[in-house]
Amino acid sequence: RAAGALAAAAVTAVALAVAAWRRARPVREVLFFPSPPCCIEALLAEAAEPGAPARPCPCPLPSGDTALSRLVRRLLSARRSLDLCLFSFSCPQLARAVQLLHRRGVRIRLVTDAQYMGLHGSQIGRLRHAGIQVRHDQHSGYMHHKFAIVDRRMLITGSLNWTTQAIQSNRENVLVVEDAEYVKAFQEEFERIWEEYNPANYSFFSEKQ
Amino acid sequence: RAAGALAAAAVTAVALAVAAWRRARPVREVLFFPSPPCCIEALLAEAAEPGAPARPCPCPLPSGDTALSRLVRRLLSARRSLDLCLFSFSCPQLARAVQLLHRRGVRIRLVTDAQYMGLHGSQIGRLRHAGIQVRHDQHSGYMHHKFAIVDRRMLITGSLNWTTQAIQSNRENVLVVEDAEYVKAFQEEFERIWEEYNPANYSFFSEKQ
Repeated sequence: RAAGALAAAAVTAVALAVAAWRRARPVREVLFFPSPPCCIEALLAEAAEPGAPARPCPCPLPSGDTALSRLVRRLLSARRSLDLCLFSFSCPQLARAVQLLHRRGVRIRLVTDAQYMGLHGSQIGRLRHAGIQVRHDQHSGYMHHKFAIVDRRMLITGSLNWTTQAIQSNRENVLVVEDAEYVKAFQEEFERIWEEYNPANYSFFSEKQ
Repeated sequence: RAAGALAAAAVTAVALAVAAWRRARPVREVLFFPSPPCCIEALLAEAAEPGAPARPCPCPLPSGDTALSRLVRRLLSARRSLDLCLFSFSCPQLARAVQLLHRRGVRIRLVTDAQYMGLHGSQIGRLRHAGIQVRHDQHSGYMHHKFAIVDRRMLITGSLNWTTQAIQSNRENVLVVEDAEYVKAFQEEFERIWEEYNPANYSFFSEKQ
């Protein structure tokens, strides 16, 4: 009987250790697109009211595990800050996730490209209207990055512009990495750009060509 | 005297161990663009004829350490294979590096986007003419990846299209990682695309919209 109890205790200890290791293991994920269209309502609802009873969404889209749903899940894991550096942002689903985080008190900063933010379908105006801080370049070159940093801890970067066309139709990649060295390099790049694009630094002798 | 010899031996051993560790340590590099224009002739010459006496290039560009020169250096480290998956490729300097590797016997495979490969300044025609295998999509979505895999060992990926405009004018990022897990994921994506874009699979009832 003592041996049995000991064995059970050992099994529990190993299970707990594995669970702790899983939690502590840094995220390393590669997402490839195109992603099939999917419903993210359940993810948004759970993020808005954790633990609330799930209400089925009437839309016809499946709510499976896709590259898009994984990307949304990573974004919604933000608790304190979300720094976005995006060439083009027109996907309404991703804009809703960002707005939800903003309402939840997460500090959002968004850097984007001046030429692209005015295009039809851009979500930048809506996000600004919601009170999110946005800064853009004032140069002839493109602000062509497509990265996000969650809680100064997790880097999300790749080829994907945040557009429905790119998500559903293009061959794209996104890396999700919790790696202090990479996060630091991108965080520093973000801070450089954020400062450079401070409206206080605007020159009204246009450099645009 | 014996103590002195022992100390010298210990110093040598430590130096050798550090050198071995440096060589063995996997590459982890983040490159940010824009990169100042630079001359890569010395890099190309050294790769074409290792150890040959350096001839100064008459061009007025500096040949310093830039994001572009680092990218070229990583590419030129290929010994057996270079798999390229590039939305747009019009930079003549990078095309010369790829052609040099091809002449040196490195197996080059290039996947690109059908809509972009015909644009003015594209290097795809020149590379094909040089005998490099090229495949492209046949879909309405973009083949929007921008990655390279060197010797099935080093992944080079980011936001950067291989154009002079992007290199010299845009805010861009490129990650260089020697990490078996990430390389495997991208290598598998490359093989999927390479097979899918096999001309034997072309449909001549165009799917283009």
